Amino acid sequence: MQPVKIGLLGLGTVGGGTVNVLSRNALEITRRAGRGIEVARAFTRSPGKRRICPTEGIELVTDPWQVVEDPEIAIVVELIGGTSPALELVMRAIELGKHVVTANKALIALHGNEIFAKASEKGVMVAFEAAVAGGIPIIKVLREALAGNRIEWIAGIINGTGNFILSEMRDQGREFSDVLEEAQRLGYAEADPTFDVEGIDAAHKLTILAAIAFGIPLRFDQVYTEGITRITPEDVRYAEELGYRIKHLGIARRSGQGVELRVHPCLIPARRLLANVDGVMNAVVVRGDAVGPTLYYGPGAGAEPTASAVVADLVDVVRVMTADPENRVPHLAFQPDALSDLPLLPVGEIETAYYLRLSVADEPGVLADVARILADHGISIEAVIQKEGQAGQTAVPLIFLTHKVKESKLDEAASRIEAMPAVKAPIHRIRLETLE
Amino acid sequence: MQPVKIGLLGLGTVGGGTVNVLSRNALEITRRAGRGIEVARAFTRSPGKRRICPTEGIELVTDPWQVVEDPEIAIVVELIGGTSPALELVMRAIELGKHVVTANKALIALHGNEIFAKASEKGVMVAFEAAVAGGIPIIKVLREALAGNRIEWIAGIINGTGNFILSEMRDQGREFSDVLEEAQRLGYAEADPTFDVEGIDAAHKLTILAAIAFGIPLRFDQVYTEGITRITPEDVRYAEELGYRIKHLGIARRSGQGVELRVHPCLIPARRLLANVDGVMNAVVVRGDAVGPTLYYGPGAGAEPTASAVVADLVDVVRVMTADPENRVPHLAFQPDALSDLPLLPVGEIETAYYLRLSVADEPGVLADVARILADHGISIEAVIQKEGQAGQTAVPLIFLTHKVKESKLDEAASRIEAMPAVKAPIHRIRLETLE
Repeated sequence: MQPVKIGLLGLGTVGGGTVNVLSRNALEITRRAGRGIEVARAFTRSPGKRRICPTEGIELVTDPWQVVEDPEIAIVVELIGGTSPALELVMRAIELGKHVVTANKALIALHGNEIFAKASEKGVMVAFEAAVAGGIPIIKVLREALAGNRIEWIAGIINGTGNFILSEMRDQGREFSDVLEEAQRLGYAEADPTFDVEGIDAAHKLTILAAIAFGIPLRFDQVYTEGITRITPEDVRYAEELGYRIKHLGIARRSGQGVELRVHPCLIPARRLLANVDGVMNAVVVRGDAVGPTLYYGPGAGAEPTASAVVADLVDVVRVMTADPENRVPHLAFQPDALSDLPLLPVGEIETAYYLRLSVADEPGVLADVARILADHGISIEAVIQKEGQAGQTAVPLIFLTHKVKESKLDEAASRIEAMPAVKAPIHRIRLETLE
Repeated sequence: MQPVKIGLLGLGTVGGGTVNVLSRNALEITRRAGRGIEVARAFTRSPGKRRICPTEGIELVTDPWQVVEDPEIAIVVELIGGTSPALELVMRAIELGKHVVTANKALIALHGNEIFAKASEKGVMVAFEAAVAGGIPIIKVLREALAGNRIEWIAGIINGTGNFILSEMRDQGREFSDVLEEAQRLGYAEADPTFDVEGIDAAHKLTILAAIAFGIPLRFDQVYTEGITRITPEDVRYAEELGYRIKHLGIARRSGQGVELRVHPCLIPARRLLANVDGVMNAVVVRGDAVGPTLYYGPGAGAEPTASAVVADLVDVVRVMTADPENRVPHLAFQPDALSDLPLLPVGEIETAYYLRLSVADEPGVLADVARILADHGISIEAVIQKEGQAGQTAVPLIFLTHKVKESKLDEAASRIEAMPAVKAPIHRIRLETLE
């Protein structure tokens, strides 16, 4: 089957990331979607500029309408941001019967109602997973995965810049303005940081989440919005002392008489997972009446995390364009004729680090002998704990953490160690993963 | 439009939960799916038994084939567990052109390959979100939301019983066997706990996750599986001392030569979110090459969390049966003509707790006066910190945490407090949410 031709509006951070992901993972994506996805045309204001992606095979145009009007293009991906000309371009694409994928939260929060009405009329899809919380698939979760629930509330860290600033203020006791400057230097904050630090960006996202969660129209103008500029290091410190952390949250909640929509700094108990989401990461807690609390965590911005959401939307659209409705998503995600026969490794071939607990005679030289055997098998030691023996005990515990090693190597070393007369019991081993 | 008639196989915990969720949330579900879902028939071995759901309007049958063979029933929901007769029933339902929703992890892990082949041949959907990690929508996430990624690894706490036991061992320094007995008393562990504590249940789930993540067939027999029965309180303690926690993980990872599939206890760094998932909760970390790490957290079992997944699958199927493919999922989750006009509350109507930081004269009676004003407005105090003044400072900080109060009440109290001569600056207030 011919690949689906798509057109990109914008070839900056997210556009470049999208081109890179589509090209690097072309095979996996085709195996999942049942059909290739080809970037045919892309609009950019500066075709000669250095960018993060190759552009071979893509026709670059400096007029965005040449993307939208191209009859070959089936899906328009809007990544230019802002509301004008994004709105006009998207509305025209829909008018022409093209599907639209967008990462533009302001566009959806402010103009979603009219865009969706037009899309329904024309029978096209408008997908916007990338508009909220970057790589976290919170739109799909709320629209589809929690569809059996009455959603009670949502609370999210949905602005990475703000969370980075608050995390740094806490970790280092620094002032807001001081950390903001650093964030700007690192590229986490814009030269004009208003949208992030005043909560407007978060309010756009919360508007979208609330509409989907509660089945209400998009009403950005009614979100109560307060930024983080007035938080001081002493507030952070007192909160800590009381067992809380300060996070900038977007909260949408049903209450007796209606719905609350608010973005503001908030103390939350330090033991909550949400309180432990640091740096530029995002996370959203959703409470449904059936499922209870669920949490979704991941990178809220960046070229490829956002591209991950854009491409997921593209695959969603391509699956609908390609398969019968019943076969839209293959049971095992990949097309049945495209499963791979990757071998499964026997456990001896696995590489992990290890925790080793030995029970050894309380006599000199044992630690040295064990360490020598490990070294002989190329196993490096990350940490050791040797405990004093208690009165009356002949054996004492000796604990090692190793670096990564192939399991079969460890088996060999373990046999030799267990053969030592000073080693009083089989080694107790537990694998160790840093999850990095 | 007529509601879709479904048949349940099994009316125990998950079946009862499903009936309850479908009935309680009938309106929300219809607004989302575009069509009602009606439980027409249900198989149960003991029709007279007391159960967690009402059964009015449901025809109870004691022969499961009467559900599968019923020509009125469009979707069969298999909740009896085990592989026989579940497999025969599911295969027959597919043969008859019915869609199937199942929560049966053993069935999918062991017989998924043949079930899916048959389903593809017959053009029906087999949905199984509830088979892995209960209410966490990890199947949808992997099949759809991360479809642009090459998945590098998955690591999950996917057995709540095991996680409960390890959490209790850590919190209370208790022995495995001792906590297991408690878990059995609380109903978290079966009378025969083998499937949970030996990792077989987790291996079923990991088999399914790995197939979907990597595009490989289901190969349960090749999962390396090790349980938690040999973990001792001293291992837990030494791990803690070294900065780690012990969790029972299912890990699927691509490595140079193939794929690793393994279930075993594992030390992980204590600061990771996954290390802080306690009790019967589940969580899965997925690392994709584009998105990086994302984490999904929620209840891994229980009547309504599992029903949440079952009903999401039902809504997925009903949406396909009901709408044009392009309109399968409404843009804002709910059908455009079914949006609600819930009012948005002004911020004065919101109820939250507060952190209040005052700057007050260092003189007797101020705390008492402020506390009196709060009390006069019906605001109770949860905690107070009064700091000593530093030499040369005329004002000292005074911090209150309040219980929940309507914001307009707090505004009134704050005005009166700020009018006190001893209060030297506007109150610094930050809202506080416990997220419960």
